[in-house]
Amino acid sequence: MVIIGGGVVGLSVAWRTARRGLSVAVVDPAPGGGATHVSAGMLAPVSEVTYTEEPLLRLGLASLARWPSFRAELEDESGSALDYRADGTLDIAYGADDMAYLDELAAFEKTLGLRVERLTGRECRAFEPMLSPSVRGGLLARDDAWVNPRRVVRALLTSFEKAGGTLLPDRVTALSAGRDGGDGDRSSGVRLASGEVVRATNVVVAAGSWSPSLVPGLPVRPVKGQILRLRGPEGFLTRCVRGLVHGSPAYLVPRGDGEITVGATVEELGFDGRVTAGGVYELLRDARELVPGITELELTETAVGFRPGTPDNLPLIGPAGSHGVLAATGHHRAGVLLAPITAEAVVAFLTGGEAPDVVKSCDPGRFSH
Amino acid sequence: MVIIGGGVVGLSVAWRTARRGLSVAVVDPAPGGGATHVSAGMLAPVSEVTYTEEPLLRLGLASLARWPSFRAELEDESGSALDYRADGTLDIAYGADDMAYLDELAAFEKTLGLRVERLTGRECRAFEPMLSPSVRGGLLARDDAWVNPRRVVRALLTSFEKAGGTLLPDRVTALSAGRDGGDGDRSSGVRLASGEVVRATNVVVAAGSWSPSLVPGLPVRPVKGQILRLRGPEGFLTRCVRGLVHGSPAYLVPRGDGEITVGATVEELGFDGRVTAGGVYELLRDARELVPGITELELTETAVGFRPGTPDNLPLIGPAGSHGVLAATGHHRAGVLLAPITAEAVVAFLTGGEAPDVVKSCDPGRFSH
Repeated sequence: MVIIGGGVVGLSVAWRTARRGLSVAVVDPAPGGGATHVSAGMLAPVSEVTYTEEPLLRLGLASLARWPSFRAELEDESGSALDYRADGTLDIAYGADDMAYLDELAAFEKTLGLRVERLTGRECRAFEPMLSPSVRGGLLARDDAWVNPRRVVRALLTSFEKAGGTLLPDRVTALSAGRDGGDGDRSSGVRLASGEVVRATNVVVAAGSWSPSLVPGLPVRPVKGQILRLRGPEGFLTRCVRGLVHGSPAYLVPRGDGEITVGATVEELGFDGRVTAGGVYELLRDARELVPGITELELTETAVGFRPGTPDNLPLIGPAGSHGVLAATGHHRAGVLLAPITAEAVVAFLTGGEAPDVVKSCDPGRFSH
Repeated sequence: MVIIGGGVVGLSVAWRTARRGLSVAVVDPAPGGGATHVSAGMLAPVSEVTYTEEPLLRLGLASLARWPSFRAELEDESGSALDYRADGTLDIAYGADDMAYLDELAAFEKTLGLRVERLTGRECRAFEPMLSPSVRGGLLARDDAWVNPRRVVRALLTSFEKAGGTLLPDRVTALSAGRDGGDGDRSSGVRLASGEVVRATNVVVAAGSWSPSLVPGLPVRPVKGQILRLRGPEGFLTRCVRGLVHGSPAYLVPRGDGEITVGATVEELGFDGRVTAGGVYELLRDARELVPGITELELTETAVGFRPGTPDNLPLIGPAGSHGVLAATGHHRAGVLLAPITAEAVVAFLTGGEAPDVVKSCDPGRFSH
């Protein structure tokens, strides 16, 4: 089989299928270079979705439950640490309105059986001394986790190749519809930019925002996001810190080495790859309101990525278009979180097993009914 | 002779001396890579100094008067354009206090015989439609000019080498005090990182903030500045735009190709080469208050430079320390502006001519009296 796209989703599928003994090639000119590269890697399904998106929430919780074993196996097989941390998210409120919103969120989270604690401003600052003194209160979600997506991609590549998989550093220009074999609708592989045709019974399209160029009509669009990376002393922050600033959600995700990812803008501008003055300004402004001391930290990176968005914010996982073609794309903001359950579902589709129930909401054909 | 430092000052001295037929070598591992590289290239002596700095103002005006011919010869000899523009600076006020300050500045500028015009807010926006609608008024200095410092450095290098000069892409580790010749105090060249000693009767130290490592005791310190570069459509701005924002001066300098330099922070942090979240935030915030539409522009570069500061903000030009050693450093914010008069003075010192009167205030020994 061939997997188009070496982001966190494509490589997770690749690793899991290669381990099952399937012959797998991943085609990507720059694995890990797409949306995964600029992702913050938060594994926090509840704070990432709105109340109306229950199927996405269920999917996220199901995948979050798979992350500990996914992580353990991946670290074990790759021999490298993912900087996986499960120290919780601190959701911060500065105004009375923000606090009321957090109280509602806490009530909702409790109905889901999640551990959340309501903290006073003083308690918030006891957990994270770098928070602004004007913090009014917050919510601590102790079970929230996060991971360094760049390390995940490297570990997946290593483990995939150890499992016998092949990486083809090229670009797919088209699905090759099997004319050679004369079997009409049956996909028989992909055509590469080099001109080479790679034959395969199954093709998994995990090309994120670029997926519709391979499967026309696939309802995926690029949702531009700008992020920053800062570098500070280790322990500057110990948890993910989130908050609403000027009505838009901002977050700071600390890594073990002192790096802090600050995200993220949400822009419907197609494939506009420009880091803009306004995007960077807003990210710095919001991060500064949450944690004033970030002004002293080094700004090490500004970057743009394209989240693969879908009309209902749910991914597309399952048979798509021609026979033998599977989609594993459209993961929007949640590619890293949803990689384990996506891989599990694709393995099931390929091997005739049973995909997890929650993945049924992700049928790529759901919009054409 | 040997010139240590290939910034705009060192290369201007090099070009002017090589043209006089002197044998000249410039030593710099990365010419144009120091403070010049991040300079905005404003040739606006009046708006750059405070009222109390009359000697610096006189020096700046004298050098500004030399820029048109310096530019013409340099473009002619190098065969390349400097993106020199003399379209004026628009100094903007948003509050009543700012406007009062500009009125005082205008009165002062008029006593110096400079053309300045007081504009209403409406007139300001007629000149520069991208200005914020809340602009209260401004001052148009029609004679102000600016230049692209990176082009200046490239043109100087070309012209210098055409004139027979030699560039040594190495680093000077020490002045070589002439022990070989046995003449004690007489400098006889420089020692390079490669181990090579380059002999010379005269050594010009034009190493900016790094000069004290070569001439101990030279009163030069690094004054950190962070700047940004944006890219917009050509003609987004047509003049330099300056203004006081939150009490600190901000400026936007447009180039012919749509690039806009936004500057600059002023930080006493020694050689701290980090671009910081706070520095970039302040630059974007201030630029946005002057010209709100910059938010849509691409942020193409963030950079740090070290202005070579002196105790009285005047440069050090003239004999320094050992016999045969000349200083041409300490130009602080004004290296590009002051390059022509500095080169002229150094040529005079070397050839027994008369240095311009205004350069007398720049005697490197003035602090030890």
